[in-house]
Amino acid sequence: MGLRDNIRRVVPYTPGEQPKIKVIKLNTNECPYPPSPRVIRALKEADYERLRLYPDPVCDGFVSALSEYYGVGKDQIFVGVGSDDVLSMCFMTFFNGDKPVLFPDITYSFYDVWAEVYRIPYRQLPLREDFSVDPEDYMGENGGIVLANPNAPTGIAAGKEELERIIAGNPESVVIVDEAYIDFGGETCLPLINKYENLIVVRTMSKSRAMAGMRLGYAFGCPELIKYLNDVKFSVNSYTLNMPSLIAGAEAIRDGEYFGEITGRVRATRERCKAELKKRGFEFADSMANFIFARHPEYHAARIFEELKKRGIYVRYFNKPRIDEYLRISIGTDEEMGAFLSALDEILPEVE
Amino acid sequence: MGLRDNIRRVVPYTPGEQPKIKVIKLNTNECPYPPSPRVIRALKEADYERLRLYPDPVCDGFVSALSEYYGVGKDQIFVGVGSDDVLSMCFMTFFNGDKPVLFPDITYSFYDVWAEVYRIPYRQLPLREDFSVDPEDYMGENGGIVLANPNAPTGIAAGKEELERIIAGNPESVVIVDEAYIDFGGETCLPLINKYENLIVVRTMSKSRAMAGMRLGYAFGCPELIKYLNDVKFSVNSYTLNMPSLIAGAEAIRDGEYFGEITGRVRATRERCKAELKKRGFEFADSMANFIFARHPEYHAARIFEELKKRGIYVRYFNKPRIDEYLRISIGTDEEMGAFLSALDEILPEVE
Repeated sequence: MGLRDNIRRVVPYTPGEQPKIKVIKLNTNECPYPPSPRVIRALKEADYERLRLYPDPVCDGFVSALSEYYGVGKDQIFVGVGSDDVLSMCFMTFFNGDKPVLFPDITYSFYDVWAEVYRIPYRQLPLREDFSVDPEDYMGENGGIVLANPNAPTGIAAGKEELERIIAGNPESVVIVDEAYIDFGGETCLPLINKYENLIVVRTMSKSRAMAGMRLGYAFGCPELIKYLNDVKFSVNSYTLNMPSLIAGAEAIRDGEYFGEITGRVRATRERCKAELKKRGFEFADSMANFIFARHPEYHAARIFEELKKRGIYVRYFNKPRIDEYLRISIGTDEEMGAFLSALDEILPEVE
Repeated sequence: MGLRDNIRRVVPYTPGEQPKIKVIKLNTNECPYPPSPRVIRALKEADYERLRLYPDPVCDGFVSALSEYYGVGKDQIFVGVGSDDVLSMCFMTFFNGDKPVLFPDITYSFYDVWAEVYRIPYRQLPLREDFSVDPEDYMGENGGIVLANPNAPTGIAAGKEELERIIAGNPESVVIVDEAYIDFGGETCLPLINKYENLIVVRTMSKSRAMAGMRLGYAFGCPELIKYLNDVKFSVNSYTLNMPSLIAGAEAIRDGEYFGEITGRVRATRERCKAELKKRGFEFADSMANFIFARHPEYHAARIFEELKKRGIYVRYFNKPRIDEYLRISIGTDEEMGAFLSALDEILPEVE
């Protein structure tokens, strides 16, 4: 018996690189545009003398803005320090039984990390050959289900009917639909929270609201599930969102026009980029997210990744089974994507 | 077997009230003075366009500032979303065995909440009659130890020698010394992290740095313990501190002069307030924190609490065994404490 026997030792999640030099950063699915000017103004004008006081533990201003914008009750909303905090709290709260929690083999790579750290039994179900979800796989006994929609890193969106089949077919499990990328395409399950008491829909402000640096995420669900989440949250840390994030969250939600503009721009750039990648022989599913997950039948992804990096262009490469021929390319500005495509034109003949 | 069987259901921590009307708030141990002018300036001048990017996951700027100020290695520092986040991570990481974790019966009321939520066995050891810690109590077999120094809500500081005896006497357990209030008095255990590999010292910026609203806390320990903490943190949420908090944390630490000034003022007000309370017949231990924990032999605390509240003055009353005759009075400005004392003069004859 020694000091180390009492210590929880885990292998943590590896975030994408945060290079400190000036580069074109297409590796962590950030928004290429700044946050809403309303957010920036509110942060510049905030009364920071009030920082001496604890922030509102129930985050009423932010939750009220979300409630109004999405047309759901305040008691149907949970907020956290990015969707990672929200998802982590969901894993801890809802996946508390002995049966395995189910999620795809190819998906957000934090799911198995949370399962490990919270000692949740889990099974990673292989996606179909084309990386789509087979709803049948999720009809057996389980302790919960997590599906990202659109999925990451594939960008593929499942149909709402398919997801509803999974939700309806598992009334004894909480089903989490992680909609981190839904603002760029795909159909939301949000309206289903009024129909199913076992559904949690998770969102983030890191991508479509251009605020990865503020750490804001939220979840929707029936009031009972949201209450259980809040009880666990208030057992871990009563005051998670700080004063600047509460201000920024509410202002970002109120500026629907700017939000529509930047997500529209990202989508348009994505579609142009798809056409250009196709011209160059790349293969990819029809991404609905703010990234494209692509492989080239002739050139190896790891080589392209390294060559791009040499040129100051960062994309994401996962050295994992089934996806080690792919690159995940976040959608930047048109200018950044132009530089990326030019670099490809330089690289592809070389890495052959 | 139903939906609710998989759900972790807990009784959460109850934070002090956050009244929305204009009151004198002496109930949550906040600092009565604003944060450093350097913090406020930096937040006003920050480049919020950069919020589109993820913050630095290793918090290098903030950690470097702490390292320089406290004269410890960067690998001896862990940072989190307030000391609640830091302590919660410590409970999850270090109290992972089968033996009970030990802490006093009267102390920060989050400790048993964390033990419950993480299913950590624990024993609450009664403080002595005078609310001091008996080091002998902590010499038996255990899975870890947590001691707040100065303790809350009593304000009593243990001697460094007593704490060192506990740390040295438990080489197989992690001992956490929660120094949330150490900047107002008492002797820090910080230098002991270089001598004992089982010691973690926790601090917060909520009180002595006047930034409860920013949610910043940190811990010191040997590099091995800090690594285990970071591994768990990166398994839960890679990016916990947002951009404004990283800026504010570093700036606050760099302004040692302002820090010295406001903590000195709080201490001076506390000592004046002790004298005034004594004149009015109150009894209390010699608090080293930014609050006084006092009882009156003739007037019941619950009645005084209610009467103060009617007059817009909020203090904290805990309706718990052994301490239900006490009020915890946070130290405000001299003016606020004057108003509090005048209110007492009005109330005491009435509640007799």
